[in-house]
This record gives sequence, C-alpha cells and structure tokens, in this order.
Amino acid sequence: MRFSSLHTLVACSLLLLAAAHAQQSPVAAVDPFIGTGPEGHTFPGAAVPFGMVQLSPDTQIRPFKQSYKWAAGYRYEDTTILGFSHTHFSGAGHSDLGDVLLQPISGDVNLEPGDADHPGYRSKFNHASEKASPGYYGVTLEDYGIKAELTATTRVGVHRYSYPANKSEHILLDLRSSIYNYPGKVLWSRLRVRNDGTITGMRETRGWAPGRQLYFAIRFSQPLTAHHLYNRESQPILYNGFKTPGNTPEDTQSMEGRGLIGVFDFASSPKPLVVKVAISPTSEDEAIANMDAEVPAFDFDAARKAATAQWEKALSAVEITANADTRKSLYTALYHTLLSPSVSMDVDGSYRGPDNQVHKANGFNFVSSLSLWDTYRAEQPLMTLLQPASRTADLAQSMLASQKESPFGILPVWQFQGIETWCMIGYHAVPVLADAIAKDIPGFDKNAALDAMIASAKYAPYGNLGAYMKLGYVPVDNDQEAASKTVEYAFDDWTIAKTAEKLGRKDIATEFYKRAQYWRNNFNTKDGFVEPRLANGNYRTPFDPTKAGANSGFTEGNAWQYSWYQPQDELGLIKLLGGPDKLVAKLDEMFDQKVDPAKYADVEDISGMIGQYIHGNEPSHHLPYLYMYAGQPWRTQARLKQIVDSQYKPAPDGLVGNDDLGQMSAWLFFTSLGFYPVAPTSNEYVIGKPFVDHAAMHLPNGKTFTITAENLSDTNAFVQNVTLNGKPLDRSFLTHDELMNGGELHFVMSTKEKAAWSMKNHTAPYSMTK
Amino acid sequence: MRFSSLHTLVACSLLLLAAAHAQQSPVAAVDPFIGTGPEGHTFPGAAVPFGMVQLSPDTQIRPFKQSYKWAAGYRYEDTTILGFSHTHFSGAGHSDLGDVLLQPISGDVNLEPGDADHPGYRSKFNHASEKASPGYYGVTLEDYGIKAELTATTRVGVHRYSYPANKSEHILLDLRSSIYNYPGKVLWSRLRVRNDGTITGMRETRGWAPGRQLYFAIRFSQPLTAHHLYNRESQPILYNGFKTPGNTPEDTQSMEGRGLIGVFDFASSPKPLVVKVAISPTSEDEAIANMDAEVPAFDFDAARKAATAQWEKALSAVEITANADTRKSLYTALYHTLLSPSVSMDVDGSYRGPDNQVHKANGFNFVSSLSLWDTYRAEQPLMTLLQPASRTADLAQSMLASQKESPFGILPVWQFQGIETWCMIGYHAVPVLADAIAKDIPGFDKNAALDAMIASAKYAPYGNLGAYMKLGYVPVDNDQEAASKTVEYAFDDWTIAKTAEKLGRKDIATEFYKRAQYWRNNFNTKDGFVEPRLANGNYRTPFDPTKAGANSGFTEGNAWQYSWYQPQDELGLIKLLGGPDKLVAKLDEMFDQKVDPAKYADVEDISGMIGQYIHGNEPSHHLPYLYMYAGQPWRTQARLKQIVDSQYKPAPDGLVGNDDLGQMSAWLFFTSLGFYPVAPTSNEYVIGKPFVDHAAMHLPNGKTFTITAENLSDTNAFVQNVTLNGKPLDRSFLTHDELMNGGELHFVMSTKEKAAWSMKNHTAPYSMTK
Repeated sequence: MRFSSLHTLVACSLLLLAAAHAQQSPVAAVDPFIGTGPEGHTFPGAAVPFGMVQLSPDTQIRPFKQSYKWAAGYRYEDTTILGFSHTHFSGAGHSDLGDVLLQPISGDVNLEPGDADHPGYRSKFNHASEKASPGYYGVTLEDYGIKAELTATTRVGVHRYSYPANKSEHILLDLRSSIYNYPGKVLWSRLRVRNDGTITGMRETRGWAPGRQLYFAIRFSQPLTAHHLYNRESQPILYNGFKTPGNTPEDTQSMEGRGLIGVFDFASSPKPLVVKVAISPTSEDEAIANMDAEVPAFDFDAARKAATAQWEKALSAVEITANADTRKSLYTALYHTLLSPSVSMDVDGSYRGPDNQVHKANGFNFVSSLSLWDTYRAEQPLMTLLQPASRTADLAQSMLASQKESPFGILPVWQFQGIETWCMIGYHAVPVLADAIAKDIPGFDKNAALDAMIASAKYAPYGNLGAYMKLGYVPVDNDQEAASKTVEYAFDDWTIAKTAEKLGRKDIATEFYKRAQYWRNNFNTKDGFVEPRLANGNYRTPFDPTKAGANSGFTEGNAWQYSWYQPQDELGLIKLLGGPDKLVAKLDEMFDQKVDPAKYADVEDISGMIGQYIHGNEPSHHLPYLYMYAGQPWRTQARLKQIVDSQYKPAPDGLVGNDDLGQMSAWLFFTSLGFYPVAPTSNEYVIGKPFVDHAAMHLPNGKTFTITAENLSDTNAFVQNVTLNGKPLDRSFLTHDELMNGGELHFVMSTKEKAAWSMKNHTAPYSMTK
Repeated sequence: MRFSSLHTLVACSLLLLAAAHAQQSPVAAVDPFIGTGPEGHTFPGAAVPFGMVQLSPDTQIRPFKQSYKWAAGYRYEDTTILGFSHTHFSGAGHSDLGDVLLQPISGDVNLEPGDADHPGYRSKFNHASEKASPGYYGVTLEDYGIKAELTATTRVGVHRYSYPANKSEHILLDLRSSIYNYPGKVLWSRLRVRNDGTITGMRETRGWAPGRQLYFAIRFSQPLTAHHLYNRESQPILYNGFKTPGNTPEDTQSMEGRGLIGVFDFASSPKPLVVKVAISPTSEDEAIANMDAEVPAFDFDAARKAATAQWEKALSAVEITANADTRKSLYTALYHTLLSPSVSMDVDGSYRGPDNQVHKANGFNFVSSLSLWDTYRAEQPLMTLLQPASRTADLAQSMLASQKESPFGILPVWQFQGIETWCMIGYHAVPVLADAIAKDIPGFDKNAALDAMIASAKYAPYGNLGAYMKLGYVPVDNDQEAASKTVEYAFDDWTIAKTAEKLGRKDIATEFYKRAQYWRNNFNTKDGFVEPRLANGNYRTPFDPTKAGANSGFTEGNAWQYSWYQPQDELGLIKLLGGPDKLVAKLDEMFDQKVDPAKYADVEDISGMIGQYIHGNEPSHHLPYLYMYAGQPWRTQARLKQIVDSQYKPAPDGLVGNDDLGQMSAWLFFTSLGFYPVAPTSNEYVIGKPFVDHAAMHLPNGKTFTITAENLSDTNAFVQNVTLNGKPLDRSFLTHDELMNGGELHFVMSTKEKAAWSMKNHTAPYSMTK
C-alpha cells in the first residue's frame, strides 16, 4: 500500500466521521414536545430512562371533567402553568398521578390554583421561554419572573428556581393537586416540617389506582425562614384529633387531612433555590433514603449532566442516519419508549405490590406503569432488543411477584405503582412473558412464568373467562366488549401454547393451541367479520361492522379493526375469507372507506383514521403488515408510507393518538427500521420498508445489526431488493436470532413501478394454519 | 412444746388457710360488668392483661350523636348486640375503636345493623345469658339462637359460636362499624379472601386518632362454603379502579372502598365454629404472623385457660382479705387497672409511631392507649408497684421512642395505637417518667428521659406554653382552660426539677423549681382561689368559683376543684390561705356545699359530686387526702369513707365516672389499702385508712408488703393507731422504699371518737414550701 493511498483512506474515513458528527447527537435530536398537543398525551418534563420520578409542568384547568385531555398534566395549547409535579404517564389514555406539585412563587402567595382566566397561584408562560431535552425542562413563569428548571434521577426530582431580585421567595406545595382531580379523590394526606428543614409527607388517593399511597421528602438549598401549613378541606370534620398544638396552626410542624397546602418562605437571594424532591411508594423514611442515595448535594448542573449522560447512552443504542425531521421523530420516539415501564421501588428494594402491602424485591427492580394491552405489541419487543436485562427480565420478575401478591392470583392487567386498575381487556402480561421466553431472555424462572400465565388464562371471574372457557367465546349477552375479548384471549392463549411447547409441557400446549383457535368462534364466515355472538350460539343481529363503542361488542373500535386480530393465524383468516385476494380487497376496503370521524367522536381513543384503519389506537397497528401474508409486499410498503406520512410529524401535534406508554412510538421506530413484530412470541419480525438511510442497532450482546436503504427517497419508497448479510432474502420476515447475531439487512429502494421484491417465492410469516 | 399444743396450732393454721381458700380466687372475684352502666364506660368483653385485642360486644345504637355514652361500645341498659369488635378503651371519656366487628348469624343475613327497634343484623340478648370473667365473655344472641363466646391473647381474639341445628351459618364482618361512627370516618378499607381461606384486610379511619390504620387477619375452624363482599358506600365514586374482575362482585376475592362488608358462609355443623382474629398496627402479613405466633390452633378452651391463668397471676399480686363485696370491687378495680397501657406492637416488634410510620421496638414492648392526664395520678404508680418492667419501663421506652418520632418532638399527650389525639391538657408523660426515675425503675436512659421531658415542657406552640414561660401563667385571653393549664404545668415542672436534682443537673433543677411555683401566679390571695388571669396581669372579672365548662378557664371543672392543685406544694397553699384551719374550713365548704348537679349537666365528665368535690373526674382525686397536710387525719378518713361508700359499688352502675383507663379503679385500690400517691415523684404515699382486713402485696422484687386492719368495721372506720413493722408511725406517709422493702403496715381501727392517731407529732407529706 502506498502512503498516498493510505492517506486518502484516512481522509475519507475522517470525512465520513465528520458527516456522522454533523448530525445532531441522539439527545439533541429529541424534541420532548412531540405529542404534547391534541392526542399524544405525552409530557415535556424531565426524567431519566424508566424513572420513578417523571417531573413535568401541569397546565390543567378546572373543572376537570375533561380529565382525558390532561392525562399527562400538560397540553401544548395551554397558556398557564399550575406547578411542577413528580409523576406522569407518558401518553396514557386514562389519567391519574400529578403527585407532589410544587409551584415557586415570588411576592404574594395565592393558595388557590385559579384557572386560565382567574387569578390563582398558576402563572402565565410562553413557549418561547420553554426548553426541553431528555432529562431537562426549563420555563419562565411570567407572573412571578421566575426561571424554573427541572431535572431528575430515578427517584428524585431536582428543581432550580431563579427568583427576581427584591421579591419575597416562596415554594407552594399543593397536596390537593392531582391529574383527574375530582372531589373526594384525596383520601388522606400528611405534611411534616422536620427540625432539619426536611419536609416529608404522604398522600393517599382513590384514583385510577385505588388506595394508592405515595410518600415524599423535600429539601431546599436555602434555610426556611418560615413555613405555613393549611388544611383547606371544604368540609373538615371537626374533632379533637384535628387540633394541632398551639393556637397558630399555620406554624405547626405537622398537619394531616384532605386539603393540605404548605407554603415555604426563603430569604431573598441572588442565588437560585435548588429543591430536591424524592418520592417513595412505601414510607417517608424510604423517600429520605432515596434522596440521600441519589442526590446527596444541591448540584442542579451535576444532576442534569448525569441525566443527559444516561439518555445519551440509552438513545445511542441505535445510530440513525436520516434527514433531520426523521431523526427527530425517531429519537423522540425512542425517548418515549424508554420512559416505561418505570421503576416503582425504593433504593433498598422496597415496593408496594398489588395487595397494597410492602414487599422487598430481591435481585430485581420492581417496575410498574404496565399498559400491557398497548405495549405487548411493539414497545415491549423493542425493549427486549435494547434493554433485555432491565426492561424484560425485571419486568418479568416484577409481574411474577405481582401475580404472587395479587389477591386474585393473576398477572397484572394495567398496573401502576404496583396497584391494579383493571383497565382494558385481555391478559397481555402473558404474551410479554411468552415473548421473553421465546427469545431466551435470562433472569427469571420460565416454568414459574408459565404457571403464572396459565393462572391468568384460567381465572374464571376475570373478564368472562369462565364463559370463554366453556363456550369457546365470550358471549355478548352481558359483556359489551365480548368479541374483542375472544380474539385477544385466543392470541394470548397461543403464546401460552408456544411457551408450553418450548418448555416441554405437552398437555398445556395441546390445551392452549386449541384455545388459540377460539377466534374462529366469533368469526362469521357469512360476511367475513368477527362479530358479537350470543350465548345461545347465534350471532347478534342486526350487525353493523362500523358500530363502535358502547354496546358494540368491541373495545375502542369495531369489527373493521378487530376482524383481523389473529396475529397467530393470519393464514387461517385468509382461508376463511377465501384466499389472499379476498384479504387484500378487504384490507383495501378498510383503508379506503370514506368515514366521517364525527361518527366516532364519542368513542375513546378512535383517532388517526384512514378509512376504518385507526392508527391512533393499538388494534390496528399490525394491519398494514397483513398484505405481506397475502404476498403483496408493495401494498404493505404503500400503506406504511401513507401512515407514517399522515400520522406522525416532529411537532407537538405529531402523534395522532395517545402514545400509550411508548407503543405508538415503538410502532414508528420498528417500522422506520423496516420490520415489525406482528406476532410476539413467533420470534419473527415481518418486513415492511425502511424510512431511514442507515441504522445500526448496537445490541446488548455486543453485536450490531445494521439496516441500510440504498436510494431511499420520497419517490423511491418501495423495496426493489432485500439482502441479509449479502444474500437475497427469500422470506417476508427476519428471525430474532438473525437480528441478535448481528449483520446487515440491505434494502435497495425504488419507485413503485420497479418494486421487484415480491412474495411469490418467499416464505410467509408464521401462522398456525399453513 | 406439747404435742397437743402443736396439733392445735397446726389445726388453727389449717383453719385459717381454709378460711382464706373459702374466699373466691382473684379471677372469680372479678365482675367485668362493674362500670358498664351509666358513667363507667368499661366493657365486659375478653382480654388478657394489657392486650392489644380487647374483644367485646358492641350495643351502640344509631344515630351516634351520643357517642360519649357508648365510648366502650357497650352499655348495660341496652338490649341488643351489634356484634363483637376487637378494640376498646376501658373507661375512656372520648370514643373511638370498635375495630373489626364480627356478628355470627344463623338464617337470613341482613346487611344493615338496624337499631334497637328496627330489624337488622343486631340481635336481642338478655343479661341472664351473659357471663363474663377476666379473659372470657359469653352470651346468647336470641334472634339467632347462637351461643357466642369470646376469649383472647395479646393480639388475637378467639370466638366460639355454637349455631342452632338446621340453620344456615354465617359470619358477618362489617368494616363500616366503629365506635363514634360519624359519616366520613372510614377513609379507606380493604378486604381480601385468600386462597387458604384466610381473610385479611385493613381499615383507615379519621377518628379521634386521625389517619389510623388497623390491619387484620381472620381464620375459621370450618372451611368457607362461600363468601360475599359488598361495598355499601352511600356515594361511591364510580371509576375503572373500582371494577373487580368478573360480573359477580360479591364473589370477588378482594374489594376496597369505604363501605365494606364481608359475609362468610359455612356448612351447618353440630361443631361450634371457632374464629381467630389477629390485629396488627402495621400490615396484613404481621397480623397473620401475630396469629401464627399466639394462637396456632383452633382451641378455644386452651386459649381461655391461658387467658385465665394470666389473669390469675396478675391479680394474685395482691392478696386481699375483706368482705365479698369489697373483694369484688377491689379485684375488679385491679382488673381494670391491668387493661392499659395496652400493647400496640406486632410479635416481631413492629409498631406505628406518632409520625404514622412503621418502626421497630428493640428491647421493649411498645405500649399505647396513654390517657396520661388521668393515669399519671394513681394508675401509673400502681403499675410501678406491680408491673414495673412491663408497665413502667416499657411505657417509658415507648414514650421516649414516641418523642423521637413525634413531628413535634414532644412526649405523648393522649396517644393510642401510637397516634396522638391531643386530648386533655398538660404534659403528664413528664410526671410518669419522673416518678419512674425517682423510684429507680431500670430499663431506660434516665438522662435521655429528662431531655425529652424538658423538650415537652419547652415546646412553645403546645397549649400556650410560650405564654406560660413568658408570663409565668397561661393567660385566659385566648385560652379557655388557662387556669387549669397553669397549675398542671407547674406540677409537671416540679417533677422535672426533682428529676434534674436527682440526676445532678442543677441548672435545670433551678429553672424548673422556679416554674413549679407558677401555680401561685394564678392564685388570687384575695379570695383564695386559683382564678383565670388576663395577659395584662389582672384577674378576670367577674369571677364565679362554681363556673365550669366553656369559657370558665378550667378543664372539666371549676375553681372549687382546681384551687387545690399543688400536689408539690400543699403547705405553700396552706400558708397562702392563712393556716391549716383555713384549709380545713375551705375543704369542708367544698365537700358540704349544696349543689344542683343539673347545673353541670352540659359539662363533660362532671359526675359523682359531693358538694363541689367531683369524684367522677380526676382533678378531685387527691383532695380528701389534703386534710392530712392540715394535720387532721380523721377528716381524711371520714371523707374517704364517704367517697368509697357513695361512689363505688360492685354493680354495673358501680363507677360514678369514667374509669379513665384505670385511674378511678386505681384510686379505689390504693385508697382501700390505706394510702395514696398524692404527689407522684415525691416517693411518698399519703396515709388514709384501710378498707380491707388484710392485704399482701407481692412485689416484683420478691418481697411482700402487708397491710392489716385490726377491728375494721363500718363503725370502726377510723385509725386509732398505725405501726410500720411494729413501730409506731410518726409520719403521715409511707415512703416508696419502705413499701419496696416489704413489711407490715398495721392499722388499729376504732370509732371516730377513739381516733387517736393524729398529726400533732407527725411529719407532714412532702411540700416544696415547709
């Protein structure tokens, strides 16, 4: 090799490196405001990956009847900030949390929050002063002239408030404030000012998770000059027990009741006030221990730097080369997927389980905020690729512990902070565990997991499982989500069968493969729809496939979405429909229907409609990939482009539906890389089309799986050719092993006309029925 | 010695022994119904000494406005039983508890309690079927034909229900039921049926002790055939979180809310149903552990036998020879004194402190139900004689732990199950600790105790202590119990001074000896009364010494009772009054006044009046002994006889005032033995007169102190002569050391005319002012 040649090579490498560096870092690419607009229900605040503290501004306005709108506490269109609270769901379709709300105040203190157009302790703000990035949020509270900055560790929120000169400095803590804050929600609360200036307390609420207790500890970087505690309960019960020592209750060191507020005063100082707030699901002492362990000093910048570093590491697991908007969308999507399931445990392993008792996690992190109906689809499979130890093994152990602690002996359904909410349908902890077992994730007892899965699938009182087991379907007679339940149960059952087969438990496999076919018991071959069926065996008439919501027999949808819900058996569906062309025609009919969205205005979570395809909600998410089962890849590719182009954008209104604890984002992330886990537990990722030029997944086993898209452009949106590690791919799917072994999936992109990659000679994805 | 002589001696001894044995055993002498009538507020149910479980029938009738009347849950005049609950105060003047109420039911189940004249699950009963003795209670529930029997260990109630043949058998658990059960009292509750048939749950109430959580575990000797859980909350908030799996909520295995009832069904069986109910202040798991440790089997008779044995041992500490009625009164009094302070801790030492957090007791038993305003007077000194390790050292350690855990850093005031109620005035944990230190009770850190005492005495926000420290008295301007507070604080302060002196902390002693004189700042020498005084230094006018209750400046009394409240300085009072004769005249004026009790019908706890002497409440309790300070023993003796004869009798209406966790009973017990601790911490017992022929106190140090009364009769009610260990007693008091050294206090009794024992040549009891 000549020197000049080597020199050229080095120069080229440096150039390539420079090009890569010209792209923003993953953290810089994230825009936490994406999804904070109409339907996304995400929040812009500060958190570390999977943090128990997710610290964010709340803007909600009373009356709180429209709680759904403020499910994340914050809406981008609002103009006032109520304060900063420490717990939020990212993209939930239901609402709760908003615990331990602090508002910094300069000057006079108003004890009531007020509304957007009424005076109160809330303050006007302007998006121009807002700055958010992973682990950081900043804003100026205009009414107070206070610059507010937030960062966090796993269990501690760190605030930095810069007050204007020559104004009195206060922090208001409103223990009445909550997301979806109806009268009577606060069951009890306690607030205590300790001699060392530490504030501790707890609140117990009957919210989405009933009887939920959350403890906290607060410390300030400046000494308190005074404190004032108030119980503003509208109808307190006067009783000796509520007297506090002395005649000046405001000054008391402790108060309890249902309407508590604390106001803390500080001397005016040019130095910003730093506030540390630790939370604990179990006790005040544990909250203090969490603070001592994670944030010993009042160093906001150090905490922010550490949070940023955690995000940089987590987000860098996938290196993406794409245009700036796509990178912003994708890194923000990845950011959203890394917020849940969140830790719900003290530093010493104490946590509150579904029996509302305190337990200790031995050898794992107890995690919660389990939106399983959503996340088993793509969010959890993504975590299994990127964070298998912390987000799959920990989750598995957490769910198995929950099953043991559950009064019902079943796995979680929709659990947060350890408490069950019974939200949504199905037993989708089952496919999460099954998928983890299928992928050989270590760190939990597989046979114990299978036993827990079976216990959930056979617990007759839950969701009419008794009738399902007896009749082979859930009858609609007394269950208005019956048809959805049947098909979702059947999928979950298939994952049990697969698991039992893998673990050599044949009887269980046989039993549950049979149950996995129960979707057919709600499939009316006369018109090719999954339909509500009566206990007497008849399909309910009249039947309208566009009927959704109450009394429809379907969950947040209708027969147009649910008739395709057989991820375990799509070829079986094709046979029942009369062949691949029938499937394609029906899918096209769904996508191309003219639908007035106003028809579904009253049905929760129906948003992002393309015909009767509803991208804003999960039952539709696998549908564009079904053309692959019919041997028509280009149709999948066209639909994916249609969906990505119309349903996502890097802006506050960039999510057409609730992000649902990462599922909407995980769909986009997988899809953009060119494949999607249609049937978790099959260990297959069905191939779609890439939306990035290049992506490198750095897998936890040290290997890298690279996706490259040659000639990708807006017009070159179709796949002309696919190779895996240089060899033409003759399958419509990748296997999990192929992905984990590292390598390169290379797409050559072209126009629709030149989309040569077809299914004619390819193997179809998994289906029970071949 | 001749044989015949020896024989005669032996025969005589055997006769004497037989005579002693002819008396009932202490347990048999106890009548738990004493005090269950109008004012005593005692309960007839089953408990072991100092038991956390005090299991008793509740008879209370709705509406519960007259909660005071049913402070013990049961009133002798009632005719129906609501059920059997596991926690009760013995003789409290305020009301709460009544936790975990079970009612056995045969036949149809009514879910509402009903009232005396309305149908409901309560049942008629008749006193003829009732049987109660220490550790046992039995009754027949007439509406159900069920024989109900109760016994207990420290933490477990054991029930035995004998159902009639051929009727369905049920147990109803009403988690709504409570003593003083106003709307909104139940903050939250949980109820769970475990797979092994164990029922567990918790209830959190905002009662006298706010935010109090109590956990429980229940096991039945027969298998459940069915269970039914109900939430009968009148206005439940409907929310997803409240859905339970399945469509038959009654059958669910777990429920939570504010109106929970459980009904448990059993197969008809000739065998009685045994039910074990364990409670815990900390968790369901701890409740189960408490049950496993204390009552592993379903053996009611064994549990009852063990409870009886515990009582026999505790009551036998004092052997009493007296007429049957006196023995009944005295052993019942002793029984009542041995119910509190009760254990409030799990078998593993877990307890809930005044910060409502869970702590662990290392090396002591955490005890609670601290009615200190009452019990520091005589109840606690009696415990220090009979149960110094468990009831004084444990109490001291519990109170010191509470002080550390208190949000206010002060000792308990009126605490139960670890939670502070702020009931009554003063800081009377201080004299309890001081008295224990004065008596050299081992087992706690004396200097730490003194520090805690000082902290309580200097906590300015409590009860206008700030003003007291500044002005030398509590001004009545904004404190309607001001005069009572001043004199009680001054006494408590004296006990701090004594303690500091003993521990060699001179500065503290000087400071608090000064404060101990502050009673003089409320003593108006013009008319010889303790009077309400204004902040400007003037006594408030007009002054009426008979004015009690609201706005009087006095706590549950008036100047007639409170003007003598200087147990530390009665000679100082005599000087201010103008000599012993003035004291005697004024005492007689108090006792002999004609007073219409109707005048005080509205003032709580004014009952048992002899003139303006109010035996039914504690501030009067030392008054009959004050004649001793004036050198007139016969007058004390006459008043004691007047009080004992008129204020006590061995019958349900035998207590004229609330027993106040043993204080009324302890007064009777001490008084009947012939002496009384007028000024705890002085280590003196002022001599009165005996009401028993013979009493032997078997002290924990192995020694016995005997009291004998020669010639005692109704007419021979006066003391002619007193000897201690054979030597004439030239003092009006016994010392604690003399008592603890064992020996004999021998009284020769006579008629008033022959009452030769006078004070002329005797030393007076302790007084600061000589």
